[in-house]
Amino acid sequence: MIGRLNHVAIAVPDLEAASAQYRTMLGADVGAPQDEPDHGVTVVFVTLPNTKIEFLYPLGDASPIQGFLDKNPAGGIHHMCYEVENIIAARDHLVTEGARVLGSGEPKIGAHGKPVLFLHPKDFQGCLIELEEV
Amino acid sequence: MIGRLNHVAIAVPDLEAASAQYRTMLGADVGAPQDEPDHGVTVVFVTLPNTKIEFLYPLGDASPIQGFLDKNPAGGIHHMCYEVENIIAARDHLVTEGARVLGSGEPKIGAHGKPVLFLHPKDFQGCLIELEEV
Repeated sequence: MIGRLNHVAIAVPDLEAASAQYRTMLGADVGAPQDEPDHGVTVVFVTLPNTKIEFLYPLGDASPIQGFLDKNPAGGIHHMCYEVENIIAARDHLVTEGARVLGSGEPKIGAHGKPVLFLHPKDFQGCLIELEEV
Repeated sequence: MIGRLNHVAIAVPDLEAASAQYRTMLGADVGAPQDEPDHGVTVVFVTLPNTKIEFLYPLGDASPIQGFLDKNPAGGIHHMCYEVENIIAARDHLVTEGARVLGSGEPKIGAHGKPVLFLHPKDFQGCLIELEEV
């Protein structure tokens, strides 16, 4: 069912510092910051040959990643995103198998403009998993 | 400098449960457990179209991931591995730029039989980064 690893998202306490570090220390292809007001984050993409790293930085007063940064002030891996072909079929299969989908259970339009769902980290080895329909 | 994301490593409290879950719930290509006594872990590879997930489970009395699981009993993402072409050149560049390499600073032969180094998580947004020469 799951396909490619679309991205690994890292919550960072300093977007400029993280971008500079990946650019100069790791020699990676680092994009410009993009505000995503609907998602409460500013995002920077690091393009690797086979996948992406996404830096997430809080935007606005109710950012969904503020709590994570409060608990992990140095930053840390926030979630991983797996691609699926059909997010409704994926969700229905997961729910039948006993996995918990976060929120209402209905896909939302994610930061890439595609339908996404998040799965409960307690059901998946402590990892927050995003599914994105591609 | 960095190339592909070689793998994301997840420390898991139950290797069989994690394998069964990725196989049946997520429909992924999950391999058989491989003991790596030199590294104090039993490993299971999940092969995705563009990268790998590695489950890590403690093997023996002095496993390097036991402390992580003690702190994170449900499991969690332990490290990410980026590929580099020349690990000595990568290390020298990183040290010049002020990053800290864990241990002696000399590459060791990793679980894939290739030279690896680990970078200090405090220097990289709270993420433990492995570099592997490919």
